[in-house]
Amino acid sequence: MKTFSIAKSRRLRSTPYTSRIEKQGVTAYSIYNHMLLPAAFGSIEDSYNHLKKNVQVWDVAGERQVEIIGNDAAKLVQLMTCRDLSKSRDGRCYYCPIIDDKGGLINDPVILRFNINRWWISIADSDVILFAKGLAIGNKFEVDIFEPDVNIMAVQGPKSFKLMEKIFGEKITKLKFFDFDYFEFKGTKHLIARSGWSKQGGYEVYVENTSSGLELYDHLFDMGKEFDVKPGCPNLIERIESALLSYGNDMDNNDNPFECGFDKYINLDSNVVFLGKENLKKIQSLGIKRKLMGVQIDAKSINVSGSIDLKDENNNKIGELRSGCYSPYFGKVIGIAMIKKPFWEVSQTLKIDINDQTFDGKVCDLPFI
Amino acid sequence: MKTFSIAKSRRLRSTPYTSRIEKQGVTAYSIYNHMLLPAAFGSIEDSYNHLKKNVQVWDVAGERQVEIIGNDAAKLVQLMTCRDLSKSRDGRCYYCPIIDDKGGLINDPVILRFNINRWWISIADSDVILFAKGLAIGNKFEVDIFEPDVNIMAVQGPKSFKLMEKIFGEKITKLKFFDFDYFEFKGTKHLIARSGWSKQGGYEVYVENTSSGLELYDHLFDMGKEFDVKPGCPNLIERIESALLSYGNDMDNNDNPFECGFDKYINLDSNVVFLGKENLKKIQSLGIKRKLMGVQIDAKSINVSGSIDLKDENNNKIGELRSGCYSPYFGKVIGIAMIKKPFWEVSQTLKIDINDQTFDGKVCDLPFI
Repeated sequence: MKTFSIAKSRRLRSTPYTSRIEKQGVTAYSIYNHMLLPAAFGSIEDSYNHLKKNVQVWDVAGERQVEIIGNDAAKLVQLMTCRDLSKSRDGRCYYCPIIDDKGGLINDPVILRFNINRWWISIADSDVILFAKGLAIGNKFEVDIFEPDVNIMAVQGPKSFKLMEKIFGEKITKLKFFDFDYFEFKGTKHLIARSGWSKQGGYEVYVENTSSGLELYDHLFDMGKEFDVKPGCPNLIERIESALLSYGNDMDNNDNPFECGFDKYINLDSNVVFLGKENLKKIQSLGIKRKLMGVQIDAKSINVSGSIDLKDENNNKIGELRSGCYSPYFGKVIGIAMIKKPFWEVSQTLKIDINDQTFDGKVCDLPFI
Repeated sequence: MKTFSIAKSRRLRSTPYTSRIEKQGVTAYSIYNHMLLPAAFGSIEDSYNHLKKNVQVWDVAGERQVEIIGNDAAKLVQLMTCRDLSKSRDGRCYYCPIIDDKGGLINDPVILRFNINRWWISIADSDVILFAKGLAIGNKFEVDIFEPDVNIMAVQGPKSFKLMEKIFGEKITKLKFFDFDYFEFKGTKHLIARSGWSKQGGYEVYVENTSSGLELYDHLFDMGKEFDVKPGCPNLIERIESALLSYGNDMDNNDNPFECGFDKYINLDSNVVFLGKENLKKIQSLGIKRKLMGVQIDAKSINVSGSIDLKDENNNKIGELRSGCYSPYFGKVIGIAMIKKPFWEVSQTLKIDINDQTFDGKVCDLPFI
C-alpha cells in the first residue's frame, strides 16, 4: 500500500503531547476534530499485542469537549440525544447517540454530567459545538457553549489499574466504569474517568492544567517501567475486535441509531423532548432495512479507506464494509459492515474484492469476541 | 523536518479523483471537511512556479456544499453572515464570513445563489451544515438542508482560460469573476464558476455527475498537453503571497471578522437580520485590539504547524504567526500573523524563533504582492 504524508498546518491542531509522541516514535496520524490523532507507532499488530497484555498512554486530545453551562443546559443536552438523561446523575459518563431532526446520526459522544447546569460532550469527529450553538440560538436557550482547553490522555490496558494505583493511590481502583471524579497529582486535581476507547480497561485523564498534565504524562512513563508502559493510540485491530464503533467510519449522518444497534440508547417511551423522536418512532414501526453487523473474510490483509461492496454468490450487493483489519485472534480479516435485509443473518456468505482478488467471507454478530 | 504518514480510513473520505491523483504523484494530504485534500505533488516550490505560468487541475472536492432550499432559505443564509445579501442575484458567488452570535468566525465560504429559495454554501473546514441545521430547527424555518454529492475540480493558472475555451468554447471566456453558469461537456451540463483558491485565474467545476466529471478530468489532461497542464492543489506559497486567508490556519472562532480585515463584508448599517450584529457594532465602536497582518522574516525556510510567537526587541509578545512559507518571489520567509495593537504598524520590527534559532523580521501589509 502506498503511503502519503500528512501536510501539517495550524488548522490540523497539534496537542500538548504532540512533541512528546514525536520523540517517542509516532509514525502515522489521523485527524479528529481538526486535531492530530496518533494512529500508529510502527506496527499496529505489535501495539495490539502490547495493549492486550500491558499498559499504554494515549494522546487522545482530539476527543474535544463541548461545554454547555447555564439554566437550559440540561434541556439542550437532552434535545440532542435520544437517550433519556432525566435520571442521569452527577459524576457520571453517558454514551449517547446525537441525532438530528430526521433521526440521522450526528455524533456518538460520551456525555459527562457535572451537575444539572453543567455538562461536557466528549465528542467523536464532527463539530457538535456548531449544532449546539445553532439550536441554542434558535431556541433562545439560556446557555453558554464553548470548547474548553481540555486535552485527554488515556491510560489503557490491563496493567493500567496497577499503574494508576501507584500514582493516585488505592482510591482510583474503586472508581466504577463510566464514573468520574477528581484525583490529585502533585498538588493539582485532575478529572479522571474510568473509560477509554478500548476494551482492555483503563482511564481517561481530562487534562485542564496543561503543565501538570505534561508532568503526569512523563511520570506515567517513569512509574510504568515495571509494567512495560508504552506510548500508543486507539488501535484499529483491538477496536474492531471489540466492536467499538467509530463515527465517520462505521456510521454517519445517513444512518439512524437503530441501524447501528443503539437500541438501548433510544428511549422513545420516555417523556423527554429530543430531536427526531417522531421520525425514530416511524422508523421503529416500519422496521429497519439494514444494520451494522460483523463480517469475517478469508484473507490475510486489508486496507479500508472507503466503503467496499459485499456481494452474494449471484453478485447482488448485500451490503458494504466500512472498517476492517487483519485480526491475529481470528487469523483472518474481520470488519464492520452495513448489511441489507434479509442478508443480515449470521452465516450469510459473501464475496469481496480486495486488491483485484475475490475473497469469501460470512456475516457474523457484533462484537466478535 | 520529520514526516508522518496519514492513516487512511472511511472517515477521512476519498474523493472521486483520489485514485487518479495517486497515480499522478500526489505525495501529501491535508484533511478538509473530513475529506482528503491533496497538499503536495512533490516540491511545493516547483508546483508554485508551474502554477504561475501554466495551468493545473486540482481535486478540491473537500470544499463541500451545504445546500439550503425552501421558503426560508434566504432568511437562514442571511442569518449566518454579516454580509448583506439582500441585493444578491442569481448565478453569482459571494464571499461571506459566517459568524456566531458572539461575532466569532465560524467559516468563510463562498455562497452560490441559484435563486432566492436555493443556495449552496461552499465551505471552508468546519461543519457549517450542523450550524445551519441547529438554527433551522430552533427557528422552525421551512428549509431542507443537506450535503449534495458535489465534488469540485478546479482549473487554475494563467493558461486555464485557453484550456477551458478549447473544451467549452468561447462562451466560457465571457464568464465574469465570481459568476457561475452551466456549460456542456459531451452532453452533460456542469456548473462552472470563475473562481478558485489562487490569484492566478481560473475556474471551479462543481461536478454533480461523477462519471461525466471523471471523463472531463481526463479530457483536461488530454487537451491540456500543449499548455503543460499538471495535477496540482491549493499551493501554500501562492496562497500566502496572494493573502488568500485559510479558516483554521489564519483565523478561527476566537477571531472576529474585523480582526481579519473583512470590513467590506460586514454590513452593520443594513436592515438585514444576522447573528452577532449587536456584538459586531460594539466591537466596531470599541475598536479592535489586534489584526491580521503580513510579516517578512529574514529566513530561508519555515514549517508552521501551530501559532509561533512574535516578539519585539524587549521580548514582549507582539503577536503570533499562523501561516508561513519561504517565498521565492521575496527571497525570504513570509507569513500571516495576528498582530497586537500598537505593534501592527508597517515596518514594526520583530523577532521569531525557528528551530531554536532567532530571526529578524518586520510587519507589512496584506496582500504582499
